[in-house]
This record gives sequence, structure tokens and C-alpha cells, in this order.
Amino acid sequence: MNKLEILGHGTSLGQRMIRFGEQRRFWLGEGQDHKNLTIDAITIALNRAGLSLDEIDLIVFASAVGYQPIPSTSSLISEMLGSSKPIPCMDINTSCTSFITALDTISYLIEAGRYAKVLIVSAEVPSQGLNKDQKESYELFSDAAAAFIISKTDKNKGVMFAKENTWGEGAHHTEIRGGLSNLQGQHFDPSRLQDYLFDMKGREALRFTISKVSLFCKDYVAEGGIPLESFDKVIPHQASKALSFIMKRLNIPQDKYIDNVADYGNMVAVSVPYMLSQALDNSLVKEGDCILLLGTAAGLTINGLSLLL
Amino acid sequence: MNKLEILGHGTSLGQRMIRFGEQRRFWLGEGQDHKNLTIDAITIALNRAGLSLDEIDLIVFASAVGYQPIPSTSSLISEMLGSSKPIPCMDINTSCTSFITALDTISYLIEAGRYAKVLIVSAEVPSQGLNKDQKESYELFSDAAAAFIISKTDKNKGVMFAKENTWGEGAHHTEIRGGLSNLQGQHFDPSRLQDYLFDMKGREALRFTISKVSLFCKDYVAEGGIPLESFDKVIPHQASKALSFIMKRLNIPQDKYIDNVADYGNMVAVSVPYMLSQALDNSLVKEGDCILLLGTAAGLTINGLSLLL
Repeated sequence: MNKLEILGHGTSLGQRMIRFGEQRRFWLGEGQDHKNLTIDAITIALNRAGLSLDEIDLIVFASAVGYQPIPSTSSLISEMLGSSKPIPCMDINTSCTSFITALDTISYLIEAGRYAKVLIVSAEVPSQGLNKDQKESYELFSDAAAAFIISKTDKNKGVMFAKENTWGEGAHHTEIRGGLSNLQGQHFDPSRLQDYLFDMKGREALRFTISKVSLFCKDYVAEGGIPLESFDKVIPHQASKALSFIMKRLNIPQDKYIDNVADYGNMVAVSVPYMLSQALDNSLVKEGDCILLLGTAAGLTINGLSLLL
Repeated sequence: MNKLEILGHGTSLGQRMIRFGEQRRFWLGEGQDHKNLTIDAITIALNRAGLSLDEIDLIVFASAVGYQPIPSTSSLISEMLGSSKPIPCMDINTSCTSFITALDTISYLIEAGRYAKVLIVSAEVPSQGLNKDQKESYELFSDAAAAFIISKTDKNKGVMFAKENTWGEGAHHTEIRGGLSNLQGQHFDPSRLQDYLFDMKGREALRFTISKVSLFCKDYVAEGGIPLESFDKVIPHQASKALSFIMKRLNIPQDKYIDNVADYGNMVAVSVPYMLSQALDNSLVKEGDCILLLGTAAGLTINGLSLLL
């Protein structure tokens, strides 16, 4: 086990509530942007941990989309936080599973003593790049941020097992094609607007995910040694309304997983840490619980992490 | 020490040679793009390692700028390589020092037995976003890729020490502001073209880097226990023509470091792995040598890694 404990966590949410039938979404409100959404979540997490920024040893931005191509978003966050000492910064990206990958990866550095207290923050503003003509994705996403302060510990807490896989043949099921080297902003052509917006081939993405997730979980249980039904709670990525269908296929009963898709939608990389933060706040999970963070991401990437709280 | 060894390495270079006075640069040639530049370097590295893709346990894309905002560039690379089995993929970004950060970070996962054989690839095409009106940066960059296959080993080889720091107050000295959430491609306005191009406040960036790098190296030596003069070779980021000036300030003699700025320019995150690959090919470094990878990056990030070959 890579030992670590959660010292603090915080979230922030788009302030403009939108309803699509029974579905509630939160988009950036007046005065909100990607940056202050991030800082709000971090500020709450630091306060709840009772820590000042200078006590943090590493800042990780774990999200699909950053602020700008150069420099790293984590260094821009460091600038905004106004640290009085230099803090290492890095961005880790596996799109919707970035938080799980970051927690997994950094747990090794904490276990080895490289860093003691680490800030991992995910922040996404998908509302800024949605395509009105693609109803399924247009009505799916919310803007949010979630920050966790994790720390080295002597207690019996931490990452018990983690596994990630990527099936590159699914790389184009969910994408934003324009903005970086493939199709740069400077070459924007209004006739290709759709290339700069979120594009989800919903049916193919779902079919492909379903074909891989059962197999992934079978391997996960075989290698990790904990049957799915033994987790106190499963916190899955809130990918779409099909979440309950996928959980059913995995034989995870309804009271064992968190499904807030109707209330919050898909927050890209923020979904998993947001739902974890909320579950901690609402005592849906508690100290001593063994929970499973289970993510699916554009890529197609599937990511599991067994966390003993 | 986090034990690991290099099994193979490969590079690729823009095929269009440009001269600015004594300075030689390489920009993308006919038929070249960010993607095939990446694949070319990976193919060479795999061939030289005598490995097939299916023997790789993790693909890391370690660069400043990826192909597109979603999905991760590593998953798009996985798709292009056409792996017959799923391979975990992740992107790690600390702009120009991304390769060092990735090698540093992943060395812990290799040491702990999580992954045995890892492909780390850096690929950048800065020529596609240069500003003709900013001579200093316009004449500085080359397009290139460099791939390394690293592996778990029982031999006495690996990462002896590594350290990274970021000073966020320098975050805007070197940047590309447009393309992601800050200033999206879909909102491109020709009157703001410069925001979508590379922007380097050369004098401030250099002054700030100089003010931090000596201090960083002093700490690096104190914590890592190896005096700078004891490294067999220093492979620094090829940031600019001021490299020799900075090395002089650090008291690193000319025969102890690699300066190919005149011949290759700044390749963003590719500079360090490219120069390491070339140094291995030309026997400038050899098995048993202890080398220092020393990077400076937009952020401002400074990164050091002591590697026993």
C-alpha cells in the first residue's frame, strides 16, 4: 500500500444553474472563470486542512484542459496563489481520469518520501466549448473544480491498488480537435467551428466503453484482490446517464455507488474528486472505508484506484 | 536510487533547415507534422531496444504542447502506434522540462515495480506558432522529437537524485496564451494573433532564470550530495544563446556540458532528451557515467536529475 491520508478537500461550482428536463447543470456564472473556479476550490481545501500554501510540497493540476498551451497550468496556479517559496508544479492529463492518475502516480512519490504534502486540483469549464447542435453532449456537462490535500501518514490509510489502461482505438470517440498543434487557434476558420467544440460520438463511445469496462474490472479484481462487492462505496466518473446501466452490468448495487449525473452532469476530470469530496462531507464514506475510484475517459482510458480512507 | 536503464532511444528532426546568421534551425518539412515526427522517434527507439510495442507497459507523452485539447496526446500516440493490447497512457507537462519531470516521476513507479518498461516521448513543433515580429524567439526554435525506452534493472544504474522547483511569479515571461480555456481557438480574432503565438520576454526571462538557477544548483548539490564539477557531463536545456553564460556562472567548464544551441536551437521539451540521445550515439556519455540533466522551463520551472548510466 502507498500510504497517504486526505488532510483537506474543497470544491467550487459554476453559479449559473441550467435545467434540461430533469437534468440540472452548472455553468460559469457572472465573474466566474476557469482560474477563479480553481482558486476557490484550493482555498477551501487549504483552509480545511489548516495549512498555508507554503506547507505544500507539490502542486499537481490534474485535468483534461488547461488555461493556455504554455506554461503549465500548475505554474499559473502557483502564480495566482502567490506562494512566497518555490513549489514544484506539474500537470498530469489522462482527460476525465486525470485526478485518479495523479493520485495513483503521486502516491508512489509520497510513499518513497519525495514529497510529504501534495495539492492535487482538477478544474474544468466544458460549458465554454459545447456544441449546441449536439444535444447529447450540450446537455451533459457542468463546470467545476475540486482540490485535495494529501499527505504522507503512518496510519493504515492510502492507495491499496491501482490500475490504468488505454485503448487508443477509441481515441476519437470523444474529443476537442482544435486549439493545439493539430489545428491551431490562429488558423481558426468559422466553417470548421465544430472542430473547436466538444464532440462526442455518444453511441460508439458507450458501446466501446461497455465492451472494455467489464473486462477491466475483472482484471482489476483479479490483480487487486478485492471483489467489487467488497468496496464500501464506488465513486465512478459521472460520464453520462448510462452510468446506472454500466454499474448494473458490473453487478454493483445501487446503494454502493454514487450517481449524481442528474444533479451535476459530467464535470470531465472533476467528477470523481467532486463526488469524493461531497461523499466525505455527507458521510457517505468515512474513515476506515475502502472505496473504489473508477474512471472512464476519452482515450479510451479506464482507471481504477482502491483507497483506504 | 531509483534503478532504471535505457534500453533504446531515437530522435527525429524537422527536415527544413533554416539559417539565421550562424544559427541553424530545423522546421517541419514537406509531409512532416507533429504526429509523424513523434512516431518516427518512437519507432527508432523501439527498434534499437529490440522491443515491440506490446512489450511496453506505459506510454508517457512529456511535452509542453499536445496535439489537441481532448483526449490526451499519449492516447492519440497509442492509437497511431496501433497497439494490439491496451497500454496505460498519460501526459506529463512542465513545459521545457517535461522530459526530466516524467523521468523523475516515473522512476518511482519503476522502482516500486508498478511498470517494467516505459516509453517516454517528447515532441514539439514550435515553428508552427512563432511570431515573425519577435526576432529573438522567431530565430530560436527547432521542431523535433525524442523517445526513450527505460526499464527496471538490477544493475547499478538509475536516478540518483532529482529536484524540481517552480517560481510562479515568472509564469508570464514565456507563454502561448491562446488555444485553451483562457482564450479559445473558436474566439480567434486576427487583431489578437500575437496571443496565439509564442511570446518570450527574453530579457526578463533570462534575468529571472539567472537569479534562480545558481540558488537552485546550490540546493541541488547540498541535497543531492554530488558537486556540479563531479558530473561526467551536464546536459542542459538548450534555452538560448545565453546557455554558455549561465554555465559559466555555475562554474561548469565548457568541456563538461553540451551546448548545441547554434546547431539545433531550442526544441522546447525535446532539447534535453534529444541532446542525451545524441550524446549516447556520439559516445560523449557512456555506461557508468553520472550525468546531470538540467532544465529551465516556462513557469519558471527549474529541474535537475542525476542519472547514473
